[in-house]
Amino acid sequence: MSGPHDREERDSLGPVRVPADRYWGAQTQRALENFPIGTERLPPGLIHALGLQKQAAARANVAVEALDPELGAAIEAAAREVADGLLDDHFPLPVWQSGSGTQTNMNANEVIANRANERLGQPLGAKAPVHPNDHVNRSQSSNDTIPTVMHLAALLALRDHLSPALDHLANSLSERAAAFGDRVKSGRTHLQDAVPVTLRQEFQGYAAQVEGAAGRLRRLSTDLLPLAQGGTAVGSGLNCPPGFVPRFLAEVGGLTGLDVTEAPDHFAANAAHDVFVDLSGALGGTAAALAKIAGDIRFMGCGPRCGIGELALPANEPGSSIMPGKVNPSQIEALLMVCAQVAGHHVTVQQAAAGGQMELNTGKPVIIHAVLSSIRLLGDTARSFADRCVAGLTPEDDRLAEMAGRSLMLVTALAPAVGYDRAAEAAHKAAHEGTTLREAVLTLDLLDAESFDRLVDPLAMATGAGG
Amino acid sequence: MSGPHDREERDSLGPVRVPADRYWGAQTQRALENFPIGTERLPPGLIHALGLQKQAAARANVAVEALDPELGAAIEAAAREVADGLLDDHFPLPVWQSGSGTQTNMNANEVIANRANERLGQPLGAKAPVHPNDHVNRSQSSNDTIPTVMHLAALLALRDHLSPALDHLANSLSERAAAFGDRVKSGRTHLQDAVPVTLRQEFQGYAAQVEGAAGRLRRLSTDLLPLAQGGTAVGSGLNCPPGFVPRFLAEVGGLTGLDVTEAPDHFAANAAHDVFVDLSGALGGTAAALAKIAGDIRFMGCGPRCGIGELALPANEPGSSIMPGKVNPSQIEALLMVCAQVAGHHVTVQQAAAGGQMELNTGKPVIIHAVLSSIRLLGDTARSFADRCVAGLTPEDDRLAEMAGRSLMLVTALAPAVGYDRAAEAAHKAAHEGTTLREAVLTLDLLDAESFDRLVDPLAMATGAGG
Amino acid sequence: MSGPHDREERDSLGPVRVPADRYWGAQTQRALENFPIGTERLPPGLIHALGLQKQAAARANVAVEALDPELGAAIEAAAREVADGLLDDHFPLPVWQSGSGTQTNMNANEVIANRANERLGQPLGAKAPVHPNDHVNRSQSSNDTIPTVMHLAALLALRDHLSPALDHLANSLSERAAAFGDRVKSGRTHLQDAVPVTLRQEFQGYAAQVEGAAGRLRRLSTDLLPLAQGGTAVGSGLNCPPGFVPRFLAEVGGLTGLDVTEAPDHFAANAAHDVFVDLSGALGGTAAALAKIAGDIRFMGCGPRCGIGELALPANEPGSSIMPGKVNPSQIEALLMVCAQVAGHHVTVQQAAAGGQMELNTGKPVIIHAVLSSIRLLGDTARSFADRCVAGLTPEDDRLAEMAGRSLMLVTALAPAVGYDRAAEAAHKAAHEGTTLREAVLTLDLLDAESFDRLVDPLAMATGAGG
Amino acid sequence: MSGPHDREERDSLGPVRVPADRYWGAQTQRALENFPIGTERLPPGLIHALGLQKQAAARANVAVEALDPELGAAIEAAAREVADGLLDDHFPLPVWQSGSGTQTNMNANEVIANRANERLGQPLGAKAPVHPNDHVNRSQSSNDTIPTVMHLAALLALRDHLSPALDHLANSLSERAAAFGDRVKSGRTHLQDAVPVTLRQEFQGYAAQVEGAAGRLRRLSTDLLPLAQGGTAVGSGLNCPPGFVPRFLAEVGGLTGLDVTEAPDHFAANAAHDVFVDLSGALGGTAAALAKIAGDIRFMGCGPRCGIGELALPANEPGSSIMPGKVNPSQIEALLMVCAQVAGHHVTVQQAAAGGQMELNTGKPVIIHAVLSSIRLLGDTARSFADRCVAGLTPEDDRLAEMAGRSLMLVTALAPAVGYDRAAEAAHKAAHEGTTLREAVLTLDLLDAESFDRLVDPLAMATGAGG
Repeated sequence: MSGPHDREERDSLGPVRVPADRYWGAQTQRALENFPIGTERLPPGLIHALGLQKQAAARANVAVEALDPELGAAIEAAAREVADGLLDDHFPLPVWQSGSGTQTNMNANEVIANRANERLGQPLGAKAPVHPNDHVNRSQSSNDTIPTVMHLAALLALRDHLSPALDHLANSLSERAAAFGDRVKSGRTHLQDAVPVTLRQEFQGYAAQVEGAAGRLRRLSTDLLPLAQGGTAVGSGLNCPPGFVPRFLAEVGGLTGLDVTEAPDHFAANAAHDVFVDLSGALGGTAAALAKIAGDIRFMGCGPRCGIGELALPANEPGSSIMPGKVNPSQIEALLMVCAQVAGHHVTVQQAAAGGQMELNTGKPVIIHAVLSSIRLLGDTARSFADRCVAGLTPEDDRLAEMAGRSLMLVTALAPAVGYDRAAEAAHKAAHEGTTLREAVLTLDLLDAESFDRLVDPLAMATGAGG
Repeated sequence: MSGPHDREERDSLGPVRVPADRYWGAQTQRALENFPIGTERLPPGLIHALGLQKQAAARANVAVEALDPELGAAIEAAAREVADGLLDDHFPLPVWQSGSGTQTNMNANEVIANRANERLGQPLGAKAPVHPNDHVNRSQSSNDTIPTVMHLAALLALRDHLSPALDHLANSLSERAAAFGDRVKSGRTHLQDAVPVTLRQEFQGYAAQVEGAAGRLRRLSTDLLPLAQGGTAVGSGLNCPPGFVPRFLAEVGGLTGLDVTEAPDHFAANAAHDVFVDLSGALGGTAAALAKIAGDIRFMGCGPRCGIGELALPANEPGSSIMPGKVNPSQIEALLMVCAQVAGHHVTVQQAAAGGQMELNTGKPVIIHAVLSSIRLLGDTARSFADRCVAGLTPEDDRLAEMAGRSLMLVTALAPAVGYDRAAEAAHKAAHEGTTLREAVLTLDLLDAESFDRLVDPLAMATGAGG
Repeated sequence: MSGPHDREERDSLGPVRVPADRYWGAQTQRALENFPIGTERLPPGLIHALGLQKQAAARANVAVEALDPELGAAIEAAAREVADGLLDDHFPLPVWQSGSGTQTNMNANEVIANRANERLGQPLGAKAPVHPNDHVNRSQSSNDTIPTVMHLAALLALRDHLSPALDHLANSLSERAAAFGDRVKSGRTHLQDAVPVTLRQEFQGYAAQVEGAAGRLRRLSTDLLPLAQGGTAVGSGLNCPPGFVPRFLAEVGGLTGLDVTEAPDHFAANAAHDVFVDLSGALGGTAAALAKIAGDIRFMGCGPRCGIGELALPANEPGSSIMPGKVNPSQIEALLMVCAQVAGHHVTVQQAAAGGQMELNTGKPVIIHAVLSSIRLLGDTARSFADRCVAGLTPEDDRLAEMAGRSLMLVTALAPAVGYDRAAEAAHKAAHEGTTLREAVLTLDLLDAESFDRLVDPLAMATGAGG
Repeated sequence: MSGPHDREERDSLGPVRVPADRYWGAQTQRALENFPIGTERLPPGLIHALGLQKQAAARANVAVEALDPELGAAIEAAAREVADGLLDDHFPLPVWQSGSGTQTNMNANEVIANRANERLGQPLGAKAPVHPNDHVNRSQSSNDTIPTVMHLAALLALRDHLSPALDHLANSLSERAAAFGDRVKSGRTHLQDAVPVTLRQEFQGYAAQVEGAAGRLRRLSTDLLPLAQGGTAVGSGLNCPPGFVPRFLAEVGGLTGLDVTEAPDHFAANAAHDVFVDLSGALGGTAAALAKIAGDIRFMGCGPRCGIGELALPANEPGSSIMPGKVNPSQIEALLMVCAQVAGHHVTVQQAAAGGQMELNTGKPVIIHAVLSSIRLLGDTARSFADRCVAGLTPEDDRLAEMAGRSLMLVTALAPAVGYDRAAEAAHKAAHEGTTLREAVLTLDLLDAESFDRLVDPLAMATGAGG
């Protein structure tokens, strides 16, 4: 490990060799060596939020005179680089570390201290004038910082990534609904022929599902606004000076536009992440909505010649390595796999959230990994599905019309007039004898032809236009 | 099956023998024979909500002149008996039936029709003057009725069962917090000694977790207020007369006190149950909160002589079949098993909700079974845990005091004065040499004795009283 | 609670009133009052296995002279009644109790003691000459008894319920495969038209899935044969006399026909239930198989007039409360809901199994509740699906033939002759121009008509018969 | 996208610009652009197995004269580079793609074709003499290739990564058991004091759990040996020449040492991945075992001064950013987060596996992603936990001895002599009066002092040495 490209860093356990071109210090390096587990790193969204948090904390510390203004300015500038993603390569740690995220908090403290000292003309590793614990981490503990940053990262990802992606998908579905209009078709319940609907109605229903999911997530995200910052190690606020918290919250609000508040109970805020269980549950609700919609479109696009064939799917790529000319609903399949992943992530979050003990929940890294992964994947897939599948759907008019008039369930329109039992008799007769419903009804003398034709009008049945 | 104790009922597939002393009809009987699966029946809460729904529908039908007032009155009276739980024994069907819950809707239609006809002096099975489909189910389909009833049953169970149980538990935890007061103790993070806290702080934190969960559930429950009623078979409202829906909603509001509204999109309302995924996710958040609290109390009660021993648990029963005199945290174990069940139920709900197809979700019975089971279990266990565990907890003062002053983490109070690195040196020295922290600090000459004693005051460190 | 219909029972905490007509004693009664949680009771299969275990233990205790033969005979006779299900009404306790199942073990000890004493002419509640702890529970603890009984109950349920049900379903699918024979049809991958297959092939594939699942479960069930009995309270075997375990195992083997063995490590056997996680995972594999098969049949049965319509589903009941004459795949929906439940149960089992602490896992009741529920539900639904859906499926020959010859994917047969790229060109041409594949190929001059007709033979493509 | 650093590639949909320094072709590039979803790529283990599969297929194709030997040799050499991980940078595709993994199969076909053509002196993009579909993919489809490769990748990861890691952990636990020896301590059930055990017994129990999990996984892995190869597009084997499959299996066996066989039913092999559900369930069983063991060690290491303190944990890094000198069980926390992830992955696998339709399961990429991730994480964390936690555990003798003799549950040894009820009386008396058990027994005159001292010997009670 030692060599010309290394430098020495120290922590309370002694010296460690660190790559010369990295800003991290001894504790980050130890963690890198101590946790050779998996390939999953803490997500960039969390690292950037940690930059924001350190920037706001530096300002607040200066404001309450807990930090020298010159040091504060150097810390703030370095923290801003972290927030802006300029130092992502200096955050190498895996999800699978200390359950408090302490190593990642120290990673930030070390990177910012080294970068700040560099700006102040000092060599890396000096830990002076800016010390990672005494200055960058001033008034803070990992135990209040990491939950704060988890909330911020989730809030920003929901607001800036998932929410606009869901709006985009809802718009795409609404646009298709308008374009499809009153094309009447067979409804299907239990995947069996049912009374008629229009393509517009179906796609408006899909848009309503997506809008509903987006709205519920927006409402739920307000539960993330109360922040743990200020509780320090165990919730008691030891070593956090008076005035720090309100100033910190104001700075975060200014930097992010989020109406953050102080957690009503700091002991609970460090020790419990119940709200992330609710959130990942609701991401599962969004996943259920997307899966349902995608499954329907796959079903209607099943064909092109041997299936339902009500919709034509866009051809984005050759579908098969062996069957030439095949078009597959690959965007839908990617989406359905994302939904399975989101369902799995929830179980991870639930288990990690339930496992806190005493003054600390120690599943923090995996909780935020899973939640940010779900948000990212749902947003990405919603947008890709909108652009590469929904927007390219076209109706197959012949097929829609052919099936719309064929369903025996048109009989339902007669039930108020002739009663359920006699209507059923007509439907059974037509089914058994292979005739049209009209023939069966007239043979049974349930209605005259004129009445039948007036009552059994698929478009009117679907839209109430003629009813 | 046929015999003197049977009578004949008929449906559109023909005659069926039904037990003479049951109000159900042909379709219920067929379902009973066709689904010999498991032992789980649809929960009483759903059946009672179905009674409510039929009562409100009868009133609305009469109001819009879709139903003869005399028949309406007979239906309403019978439906009220269902709502009041008087006819529970007439609802024998399992969860594992048609995924629309059609058999259970028909069970209600049949029971109410027979009971209404009986009141009107007609024999059971006559289907006249009140017909199960044409009158009891008038203006309705299973496909809008069952989702409506799922929402109502969940809303009532949340409001009347879980919410008060969580409030009760939060009160019980707050009461203990007040009673325990400022008993100082060692905090623990990562289950390792940390800076001091008080028992009051811990139990206030628990109360805050429960209050938070209860509040989030109350906010989320408003997402259940929009009802599917009026969409009938596929969402288009076919055969539902004008005016029915507003009158139905007003009646339901009057009967339940719930501010129910019409679903913004009836196609989505029949076909999707995304909101139940959110809800069961949030029930998982509640479960995570309860599991964390219960686990902590089990930990602090671990002993009595060979463990942590900070709290004494109430002895509710002999704990062991082989070890005489043993006391176990059995309420906590029951609670933790409930939480595991709730986590499992969510996966069931998520999978069933994601599996809807076209105009209908066909996982309705298992979704409501799982959700109502989670609500019931969480409410029951929260109340039992409050009454049989939390209320009986007593502090072990000797043990608390002994450990409060012993922790090396008291060194944290020195860090602002001497810096993190030197403070760590003192803690390591004390640990390696087996001395007190005070001895190590004085030996290292970090501080004088007076300063040490002023800074290292466990109660002040916990509460800021001296800080 | 007290009254003429009660009697007094006592345990180490004092006297309790118990219903006069029940065999249970003080500890059962306390548990009934202390755990007013939910409606789920421990399943009969567990109670019956507990009867078996007590019977075998009594015999073993007599054999090693740890129990008076007369008392042993009385205990054995009473235990046999438990095993035979004659005393089910005397086991009222919920799943949600002590996590060791102690209350249920004591329930058995109390019922058997009272019943044995009754046979020996003593009043209920006398605890003499047969004492629930000293005699019925002799050489045992709940902590080795309950895991033993969990294994036995699962082994018997797998062998006697699920395994034959899966065999029955596999036979039913194979029978349909044979009956359907070489009816050629369009294959479908990604739900899009693919190269041809036969109905026989599809149903043989389904049978292979079910046989595979059944075989894997049978192999896995051997992991349940090692039993915890003999470890008593913590695994050390304290108070279990030499010779007891081998004799117990021999008795269990004789009573059940199971090749049970002694757990290789008794500490692990009391404290961990990892094998139940594997088992419930594999029940999830079975569920996945059933869900896939059922989903396919629902898809092929989609119609009857507006869908795929390759298979006709049996009409078991009227499908709709509003749409007369509707037939729905209700057996399939029940099965899919069961599969969602089984997936949920696994999460419960996993969470409960992971939560053991030190010498004991305290999630035992919920683990066995979930596992036996999954076994029961899968067995029931497999049999019902076989009998009420699979057995009644009939092919729609016109529809199959119509679609078999229409697929553009028949082009795949040409790829080895003309290359993938040119074959794709032909498929695209036919798709864009709405012609047959044959027309496109001939127009492009890829092959002559004779070669085309020889290569593109759907039945031969599916079965290799002509290849 | 076009420029001097790009080149043109073509597929059946037309030309595409591809980076000049990459071997992939048009379909890979399209997929890269069409699936901008998440950051998760298909794992290297799958890519390497795909190299193996292509190598074996090339050999088999040559052997059955379906491929020119010169082309075969070029393909084999290029495929070997893929298998050896030399071309990992040429496999850029995400998990979230077509559910058949078609894009990744084509990625391999394209990379190998280009690399082979390069060796044969042709420019990239020529698709001649080696064509990705006609030669590299000869006799294959994505639909049989990807499942084959999923099985191979999982088999190799289990055999070469997880299995040795679990063995290593079991050895480490056994080594500690031997080193700890007969140090007697208080047993704990329900986390409450129980009869004595030794540290050796506890660690032997842990080793037994890990050995059990490893053995079960090894047995289960045989279910992966049957391979889908040969079924091609839908299971019928269209375009796969006679003799290909046996030769392919022999080549795979030779290259890997795995006793692979042909799937008994190719329709099921393409369309279902039930065995992966079983496997991920069993990985959950392994996770449950690891979580239990790790939780126990965390519990025993709780302290150092204010907890259980029976074991001292190794100090791998500074534990806290605010509390100087803190040591935390960070390896255990990483492990517990891994276990939560594995539990989540199972739900993903179960949902994806249950969602197959007709001739194809289209959840293949996410299934293998989740399964390989679980295998990787469990193996990594087991090894790190063994080396950085278990190996460094040391017993705290004073603490162990102090508690071993203090437990009131030593009374259990008296129950056979004095009966459960009187023994309980003594335990209660000692508890209420705060005396030793010996005092209580002698005061109650249950036994004389000599008998007490003979019966109540903690080491003998734990090991039977004195019994």
